[in-house]
Amino acid sequence: MRLKEQEKNWKDKLHEIIYEADTREGKLFDIILLIAILSSVLFVMLESVDEIQTKYGAILNIGEWILTVLFSIEYILRIVSINKPARYIFSFYGIIDFFSTIPKYLSIFFIGTHSLLALRALRLLRVFRILKLARFIGESNNFIKALKASRAKIAVFLFFVLILCVILGTIMYLIEGGDNGFTSIPRSVYWAIVTLTTVGYGDIAPQTPFGQLIASIIMILGYGIIAVPTGIVSSEMTRIHDLHLNTQSCPNCSYEGHDDDAIYCNHCGSKLHD
Amino acid sequence: MRLKEQEKNWKDKLHEIIYEADTREGKLFDIILLIAILSSVLFVMLESVDEIQTKYGAILNIGEWILTVLFSIEYILRIVSINKPARYIFSFYGIIDFFSTIPKYLSIFFIGTHSLLALRALRLLRVFRILKLARFIGESNNFIKALKASRAKIAVFLFFVLILCVILGTIMYLIEGGDNGFTSIPRSVYWAIVTLTTVGYGDIAPQTPFGQLIASIIMILGYGIIAVPTGIVSSEMTRIHDLHLNTQSCPNCSYEGHDDDAIYCNHCGSKLHD
Amino acid sequence: MRLKEQEKNWKDKLHEIIYEADTREGKLFDIILLIAILSSVLFVMLESVDEIQTKYGAILNIGEWILTVLFSIEYILRIVSINKPARYIFSFYGIIDFFSTIPKYLSIFFIGTHSLLALRALRLLRVFRILKLARFIGESNNFIKALKASRAKIAVFLFFVLILCVILGTIMYLIEGGDNGFTSIPRSVYWAIVTLTTVGYGDIAPQTPFGQLIASIIMILGYGIIAVPTGIVSSEMTRIHDLHLNTQSCPNCSYEGHDDDAIYCNHCGSKLHD
Amino acid sequence: MRLKEQEKNWKDKLHEIIYEADTREGKLFDIILLIAILSSVLFVMLESVDEIQTKYGAILNIGEWILTVLFSIEYILRIVSINKPARYIFSFYGIIDFFSTIPKYLSIFFIGTHSLLALRALRLLRVFRILKLARFIGESNNFIKALKASRAKIAVFLFFVLILCVILGTIMYLIEGGDNGFTSIPRSVYWAIVTLTTVGYGDIAPQTPFGQLIASIIMILGYGIIAVPTGIVSSEMTRIHDLHLNTQSCPNCSYEGHDDDAIYCNHCGSKLHD
Repeated sequence: MRLKEQEKNWKDKLHEIIYEADTREGKLFDIILLIAILSSVLFVMLESVDEIQTKYGAILNIGEWILTVLFSIEYILRIVSINKPARYIFSFYGIIDFFSTIPKYLSIFFIGTHSLLALRALRLLRVFRILKLARFIGESNNFIKALKASRAKIAVFLFFVLILCVILGTIMYLIEGGDNGFTSIPRSVYWAIVTLTTVGYGDIAPQTPFGQLIASIIMILGYGIIAVPTGIVSSEMTRIHDLHLNTQSCPNCSYEGHDDDAIYCNHCGSKLHD
Repeated sequence: MRLKEQEKNWKDKLHEIIYEADTREGKLFDIILLIAILSSVLFVMLESVDEIQTKYGAILNIGEWILTVLFSIEYILRIVSINKPARYIFSFYGIIDFFSTIPKYLSIFFIGTHSLLALRALRLLRVFRILKLARFIGESNNFIKALKASRAKIAVFLFFVLILCVILGTIMYLIEGGDNGFTSIPRSVYWAIVTLTTVGYGDIAPQTPFGQLIASIIMILGYGIIAVPTGIVSSEMTRIHDLHLNTQSCPNCSYEGHDDDAIYCNHCGSKLHD
Repeated sequence: MRLKEQEKNWKDKLHEIIYEADTREGKLFDIILLIAILSSVLFVMLESVDEIQTKYGAILNIGEWILTVLFSIEYILRIVSINKPARYIFSFYGIIDFFSTIPKYLSIFFIGTHSLLALRALRLLRVFRILKLARFIGESNNFIKALKASRAKIAVFLFFVLILCVILGTIMYLIEGGDNGFTSIPRSVYWAIVTLTTVGYGDIAPQTPFGQLIASIIMILGYGIIAVPTGIVSSEMTRIHDLHLNTQSCPNCSYEGHDDDAIYCNHCGSKLHD
Repeated sequence: MRLKEQEKNWKDKLHEIIYEADTREGKLFDIILLIAILSSVLFVMLESVDEIQTKYGAILNIGEWILTVLFSIEYILRIVSINKPARYIFSFYGIIDFFSTIPKYLSIFFIGTHSLLALRALRLLRVFRILKLARFIGESNNFIKALKASRAKIAVFLFFVLILCVILGTIMYLIEGGDNGFTSIPRSVYWAIVTLTTVGYGDIAPQTPFGQLIASIIMILGYGIIAVPTGIVSSEMTRIHDLHLNTQSCPNCSYEGHDDDAIYCNHCGSKLHD
């Protein structure tokens, strides 16, 4: 009986460390995990550079095996310390944890698992979990709210931009033709997107005067309509900011809209709650 | 008599399905039409890619004939179900419907109607009608209002940008000259637009130090004045948002759009509800 | 005496037509002048295109002579119709009028006044005078106010951007060196401006991994700080918009901040002045 | 005793001139220093241009020696005129002053101190000190406040952008591969940053249709999320502007920053003046 309780305590303690970030150990665990993830992503990136792979391939390999083993232990501990393991295993982060750890093991059996390399980059997504736990994301709370509130509007806007690009791309395909790089409509649409978003690679560029005229119109259009998503988010953030101020209500006169650091009601002068 | 009434009912029903989106059938019709339009545009795009045209040309052709027949039926039904057909036929969407359906038929009689290909891309414009019906656009209502309100200002701004580009382009034409790609004033103006809007293809780039100095000034200018359309739309959207919050309607004259702290209607002077 | 009065009337009438835009004749004059200016600029642009110059050079030449004579007449009439001609001649627009008209005459005596071509493009600046008269610019009044109010801030910002570009350019010069296109510090600073303002020609691009890292930081920096001028103008425009609403004061309760279309005070319900 | 006092007065006077900008002499000193710094940076820039170095190298060298001697005198005077020299020497600006002056002296003993060239560009940072003294920066006070307030949010945003670029870069590395320029993950990430920030050099550009599709998504994403930092700064600046308008100070506790319609101080509860 006591052993079971002790086990339970042990599991609780582990859960607290791994899944939460309120205790000192929990925070320490998160920081170590964050460093491990970032180093492992760095390893994946470096491994893809041919010169580094030739020179330091062996060291990188060892480093990756150490990190992979660590992640495996972490994965097992996460399963052990939770009451309903299935819930973790089939959760979004559970699946990412699994698929970002397994490729290294597969590389023993299969040679040339080059394309599995990128799977390991998925580990980067795990960073968000840590940030979430660490309450660091709280800082960005308001703007996530603003983004959510303006999601529908931005979707409509982007859809409109896409249709515009298809129409403009088709026009340019007819004007410029294949000889000037506009070999097909999809490619012309790609060019229209490159131009409208003011990216402008220059791999495809209009050569005929009329094509350059249309291109100029697209550019000025793109320069102008970038104001739209900005306006949406700006006004939304201003609104949410305004709402944010309205959390306190005066206990005496019920007046709302106090500043965050207000101690007394600015309408009747009575003391506010903390 | 009864037959006529039945016919009227039948026409009414058809009108409801095709022109409106309030009933279940109306919504279904819109969704099917939306899918048909998007697939037909996809077909046009794919057909312009040489490799795909060579391999799957026959399949694409059949698909397009099916869609063309469908659109033709839809076109006829639209004429039949409306009381004043002329009003539809010569409306904006009526003309688009006609000219985006006819090219396929013409391709039987004339070989090499390649340039008519793009006419079919016009079908994309029809998407807006469906969106309008589906009230989906309601989401973007506010920002269409904001855009309309700031239309004049943005036009003035874009006109100013254009004049600026002509002057700057002329200056660059004199500084750089034809050897560095600035072969004519229109081309230099095109370059100035490419630079000011921060697109920057790089197909034409200043080579002389003085030209690069002027180019730097244009870039910083462009980087700075992009703030202007953004500021216009932002402030307009914030204003409209503020107006939007006032859902109060005057009990006397039904006037809307009151300030949040309004006590009396600013249109007829009668007291508002709290 | 009567003749003198008549002459005065005649001068007054002419002044009204040329310098003002309140009468029907004044507006007509402005529109004709606007068309003349825009055509003459179009001629200058077309003349610089070699193919057009070869084919239609003679026609363009005749057109330009007609416009030049028209502008000369206008210039003389402006001097004649004003009471203090010196004030016009040495004003900003007076000087532009003179220097944009004279090059064509010089081309008779001197062959190869190619570089004087651009002087004629100065005519474009005259467009602003017409716009000013036509009250069209009234539309952009508010945002000119906003721009003026935020001028000092934007100047500080652009100065800061320039210093940043000099420092970053110098760093890149040391990292990349002449072999990768960063042949001198001014050229590197030019590249830094091209990158920070997100223009990105690609005529100079970092080749070393470390250079690309610094370039990435510059890009993200540029992507981030574009928010600053936008923020300045946005907040300024919102503020000016707010002020704009506060023109009327209730004659009964002195409450301010009424809507533009308010008929009754929304605070006490009494009628407002028109 | 009197001599000491005189010396003190002399030191005080010097301190006032060098470290402050309230007196006429202090302002004059700042302006001369500003010109000297800007010329010396101009010299460094010109020296790096090969043609100029070949032609005017001797003149530039003399000019730089004059400026270096001036800066050395200034450096010594700064140490002499301050009570605790160590505090200046090891301050941020003290270190910059030292390291931006020393390279020229080192060039006597060592030949080829080319890489020390850039150290002199550090002098540019000294400009900020002068601006600070000259109260010119006061103009930009509000927006520095706004930037500070939104620093954390922008950091979160930029961190998010970076993670996004790593993930997108890895995907593009797998899709495009080394043959199309995406030779390694770091290089692909660099490309993703170039694209997302709408810089678009074009030195690396996707070649496969699928790669261009992903690139299009990245561009539209970048075009859309540029609204986020802009929205943050805009709303922050609007808020600070609003606070700024409240010039009221509590008569009891001198607390500032009240709302426009505040009747009582929200800090101590006493009544405010109207």
